[in-house]
Amino acid sequence: MLDVSSYAAGQWIAPGAGARTIASAITGDVIAHAGNDALDVQAMLSYARDTGGPALRKMTFHDRARMLKALAGYLNDGKQALYDLSYDTGATLSDHRIDVDGGIGTMMVFAAKGRREMPDAHVYLDGPPEQLGRGGQFFGRHICTPLQGVAVHINAFNFPVWGMLEKLAPTLLAGVPAIVKPATATCYVTEACVRMMLDSGLLPKGALQLVTGGLGDMLDHLDCQDAVAFTGSADTALKLRGNPRLMQNSVRFASEQDSLNASVLGPDATPGTPEFDLFVKEVQREMTAKAGQKCTAIRRIMVPNALIEPVIAAISERLGKIAIGDPRLESTGMGALVSASQKRDVLEKAATIGAEAERVFGNPDDFAVEGADRDKGAFLPPMLFHCADPDSAVRVHDTEAFGPVSTIMPYRDLPHAVQLLNKGKGSLVASVITNDGNVAREITLGAAAFHGRLYFNNRASMKEATGHGAPLPHMVHGGPGRAGGGEELGGIRGVMHYMQRTAVQGSPDILTAIGQQWVPGATEISDRAHPFTRTFDQLDLGETFNSPARTVTLDDIETFAHFTGDTFYAHMDDEAARANPFFPGRVAHGYLLLSFAAGLFVQPDPGPVLANTGLDNLRFMEPVAAGDSIKVRLSVKHKTPRNDDYGEVRWHVTLTNQNDKPVAEYELLTMNAY
Amino acid sequence: MLDVSSYAAGQWIAPGAGARTIASAITGDVIAHAGNDALDVQAMLSYARDTGGPALRKMTFHDRARMLKALAGYLNDGKQALYDLSYDTGATLSDHRIDVDGGIGTMMVFAAKGRREMPDAHVYLDGPPEQLGRGGQFFGRHICTPLQGVAVHINAFNFPVWGMLEKLAPTLLAGVPAIVKPATATCYVTEACVRMMLDSGLLPKGALQLVTGGLGDMLDHLDCQDAVAFTGSADTALKLRGNPRLMQNSVRFASEQDSLNASVLGPDATPGTPEFDLFVKEVQREMTAKAGQKCTAIRRIMVPNALIEPVIAAISERLGKIAIGDPRLESTGMGALVSASQKRDVLEKAATIGAEAERVFGNPDDFAVEGADRDKGAFLPPMLFHCADPDSAVRVHDTEAFGPVSTIMPYRDLPHAVQLLNKGKGSLVASVITNDGNVAREITLGAAAFHGRLYFNNRASMKEATGHGAPLPHMVHGGPGRAGGGEELGGIRGVMHYMQRTAVQGSPDILTAIGQQWVPGATEISDRAHPFTRTFDQLDLGETFNSPARTVTLDDIETFAHFTGDTFYAHMDDEAARANPFFPGRVAHGYLLLSFAAGLFVQPDPGPVLANTGLDNLRFMEPVAAGDSIKVRLSVKHKTPRNDDYGEVRWHVTLTNQNDKPVAEYELLTMNAY
Repeated sequence: MLDVSSYAAGQWIAPGAGARTIASAITGDVIAHAGNDALDVQAMLSYARDTGGPALRKMTFHDRARMLKALAGYLNDGKQALYDLSYDTGATLSDHRIDVDGGIGTMMVFAAKGRREMPDAHVYLDGPPEQLGRGGQFFGRHICTPLQGVAVHINAFNFPVWGMLEKLAPTLLAGVPAIVKPATATCYVTEACVRMMLDSGLLPKGALQLVTGGLGDMLDHLDCQDAVAFTGSADTALKLRGNPRLMQNSVRFASEQDSLNASVLGPDATPGTPEFDLFVKEVQREMTAKAGQKCTAIRRIMVPNALIEPVIAAISERLGKIAIGDPRLESTGMGALVSASQKRDVLEKAATIGAEAERVFGNPDDFAVEGADRDKGAFLPPMLFHCADPDSAVRVHDTEAFGPVSTIMPYRDLPHAVQLLNKGKGSLVASVITNDGNVAREITLGAAAFHGRLYFNNRASMKEATGHGAPLPHMVHGGPGRAGGGEELGGIRGVMHYMQRTAVQGSPDILTAIGQQWVPGATEISDRAHPFTRTFDQLDLGETFNSPARTVTLDDIETFAHFTGDTFYAHMDDEAARANPFFPGRVAHGYLLLSFAAGLFVQPDPGPVLANTGLDNLRFMEPVAAGDSIKVRLSVKHKTPRNDDYGEVRWHVTLTNQNDKPVAEYELLTMNAY
Repeated sequence: MLDVSSYAAGQWIAPGAGARTIASAITGDVIAHAGNDALDVQAMLSYARDTGGPALRKMTFHDRARMLKALAGYLNDGKQALYDLSYDTGATLSDHRIDVDGGIGTMMVFAAKGRREMPDAHVYLDGPPEQLGRGGQFFGRHICTPLQGVAVHINAFNFPVWGMLEKLAPTLLAGVPAIVKPATATCYVTEACVRMMLDSGLLPKGALQLVTGGLGDMLDHLDCQDAVAFTGSADTALKLRGNPRLMQNSVRFASEQDSLNASVLGPDATPGTPEFDLFVKEVQREMTAKAGQKCTAIRRIMVPNALIEPVIAAISERLGKIAIGDPRLESTGMGALVSASQKRDVLEKAATIGAEAERVFGNPDDFAVEGADRDKGAFLPPMLFHCADPDSAVRVHDTEAFGPVSTIMPYRDLPHAVQLLNKGKGSLVASVITNDGNVAREITLGAAAFHGRLYFNNRASMKEATGHGAPLPHMVHGGPGRAGGGEELGGIRGVMHYMQRTAVQGSPDILTAIGQQWVPGATEISDRAHPFTRTFDQLDLGETFNSPARTVTLDDIETFAHFTGDTFYAHMDDEAARANPFFPGRVAHGYLLLSFAAGLFVQPDPGPVLANTGLDNLRFMEPVAAGDSIKVRLSVKHKTPRNDDYGEVRWHVTLTNQNDKPVAEYELLTMNAY
């Protein structure tokens, strides 16, 4: 018997008043009890807000990204223990991989993106500065800073590890502490994972707490700096969303609810094409993985009129090969549902669907189970329904049987397929198996607004595609309407849900001080040694090099043209150049200007600048003719550490002519030793 | 007497059942009646969804941006009529400019941003593609498409024109039709503006409808493709937000509520500094513009302990010079509140504040009004309160008197100022007048998460700064907590509130077809003439030029170094280069490679390519040594029309070496004739 504790205000609290029992999905035997109604909610919130938040906010985005990386590595080393525990939830080893490895992988991606796409700083810059005044002394820009409260994560039973980590990784990266409340049915797996994270010593105090059992009145104590992220049923979501305290204080509430996800077989994907086989395979996999208990699973299968029969036959054939049984057996292709009550619920919903559709595969009263007692465990066979008239049907479009249940239905043409897709009134994901870009585009224009994700697969992508049902950390997860209207993941987008976006307005110096990125017009520091002789650490934002001028001669232009082979007429033929709307006559090559600029600012000797690694946002603003002279100004714009030896320096570069008019502007990237 | 109609399902509906009367703010006389309870809500929704939406979605973002520009121009030509009507709302000419010109200007900015920052297409791309498979045949990216329903805009009384246009411009740019419901008190101005827009003939049918009077049960018929945007009181917001239909269908609900905005005088801004005078001026302006009826007005004034007296004196002196009276008089500095009931409400709230703070300027029972009857119009004087103990005070931090009322309070040090700022529990805007970047940074780190906008001003920016209270179309408007938790404007960010973000996954060809932007790995079309010989219109995405190879010699490197002056040791000294972590020995200059690449792909004769205007995202990936050879591949990535004569072509360029390894990658921009 497992005692599943909570972790509250720095203490492990064993099950007590109000503890609930948890049964094995395989044997039906009680294996654990969890929860304690005597948790001190106020103490938990204070621990997060007053201890966890300040500690996390002291770290930079890179610090927190490194912490996530170490945490993911620590979990990866210990994951066998999580696998071992997870069998009793009914899941197979390949299901554990989705849950455990998927969760760890998600954390890894956030760690990598935090380093690559966020600054080593405390303020995230959202978009470039906007010049708001003509003189260039009043700018606006958007910044994001961490919420100063706590994130309350309320998770579903189906992915006890991934479900926690996919919310936790962006939350911690944002700099916000979390209180995690897993669903009771599988909370013993979550608890084990939380224990590992706390044991690792990698998290600051207060960054992570756990509630197994009920949250009590925690939501009644939240305010504008807190956030709630919920995954689960629409009914529960509605109850939480309507909490008066949350509404009064505009507390962020993100909901990810189960939805009537669909998959469409493209009209081009006839039997014999790779797409036809691919479709059948994806449908079968989505029906049986995790015994269909995935919020992204395919619930509705849309097939051209003429292909209904062959598709039913092909799916049924594959489903027939899936062995159901004890998930510990290697031969088992599909384990059990999580609990007897979940099984009952699925059967009820299947009966509702059955009123509008005919069951063409799977009989819940007659199927084989290997290695376990069919009636003691929460076993069900995959069940395929066929709805012949999806236009008049209602319940097949709004009833989600959260198990291995799906309904196939015919469509006449693409507009009809779009109509059926959108009858779900908002879903997490819809997929289309097609090799035709026009089919993809037409469905996208018609249906994208109803779905959080559109997944296309075909012969080109099938070797690499990650599956209809797999939310990836790079891609947003969530959907409109029935899917809850929330959004999670999506790379840095997912981190933003735990930060406040603030418009900041002020002078270039003020914005530079706030964002730690030099804004044009801010003070230039030009009384020091050449900045290329100074190390990464020595350089300050705004350190500037002003070069001497160099006159560009006609001979330079001729030499460059013949040397490089770039004899474009604008550089070679005065009359032809004049006829061009951009040029007053023969002009210098843009690349000649860039190259001369490099010659003007380079420091030839070995020094801290190791390499020029790239260049961004180059714009040529004014043509340069023979006889004009150019000079270059180069200012430190931004610094980002990259590894133990060097960091990236982003320079703002302006080339001006003899009249001080800008002829080109760009950002130069160099790697500089510390 | 004005008859203020509604515009419903293509018909103007005169006031009828349930019509309300509206009084002049200046004389108290009834000047209008408005509203008709018999509006057919279902017909209005259908007109928007079935007629307006499809027509708008057929247009591209650029089409809709052009429409906005024309609409703004049309309104600008007719704005005198709106000024004339607006005096009876109590507003002065300078208030009208904020409302009418501000609204038109907002529409202009969205028109410009739509052309510049969105594609001439139907799908908006949110971020770059993400490679999800190792082989480069499975990518993800995010797109945004218009919601397929209707936007219901519920506006406040204070800005009858700007309040409508700031919501309408991003909505129409997104491609979504709107139903506008102005507050009754000033709806006659809104109605006149709507009439002008409809008369212009510039809007497709169904794109815009108007409800003067009540919305009936409209919200009970909304679904997941609709959106509600509200501006007004917290009480009304709470009622609307809790609508069961909105909650059940996850209908987007954005709320912008009045808040306890504050302004902080920086510790550096002592009397005698330009910042001190600037602060006093901004506070006075925010108290008296629009008679303080601005949701962004300064309600709390925070001043270093020692400066309370001089600041009260200076503000009072300025306030004393403001003449109150008929806004039609040129001498009038502040007009009337919008109505007698609004005046009563402000006096009640002022009394609440008065329990915690002492009134130090303005007496509502004793003040002069010029050109109008003080007791018939809704006049009030500016009132300044002083709260000596803001730590124990409660109501000064949560009571918004929506009129010319503000409370000054002392702070000890910056952490204390941050604490007081955040006591508002979420605001639209806070401002800080300081010339010290460290003050700005410290306040930002402590307070940004509580405020939608932070406005800094000082001697550098004061000539160009737009004022504490001015929401700009470029900057987000809205704030957390008490401010409603919503977000509007912010450039393209504001357009996204009316679009669905969808993650799209698939092969490069599929993503190219959907997004109309070539994704690396997609089909290359290389059997046509050199793409530089083909016009903008002729070019297809993926048209590709493969150049012959060119060997880079040591002589080339030497020549380039001496010609340009770029004698960086990595190009000149084999031994020194070897000691550098990036280079195997002496290597070619990056700019040499770019220049040679141009020579390899250029078409020297006059043709459709008019100019190379820029370059983006250049990354050097592999060093090139003497003896290596390079070739270049150039594919059409994206096309954007820019004017009547030419459009911008974005090319994806890859340089590879003799082993087909990429040595550099970038995007090239050219202007191409149609």
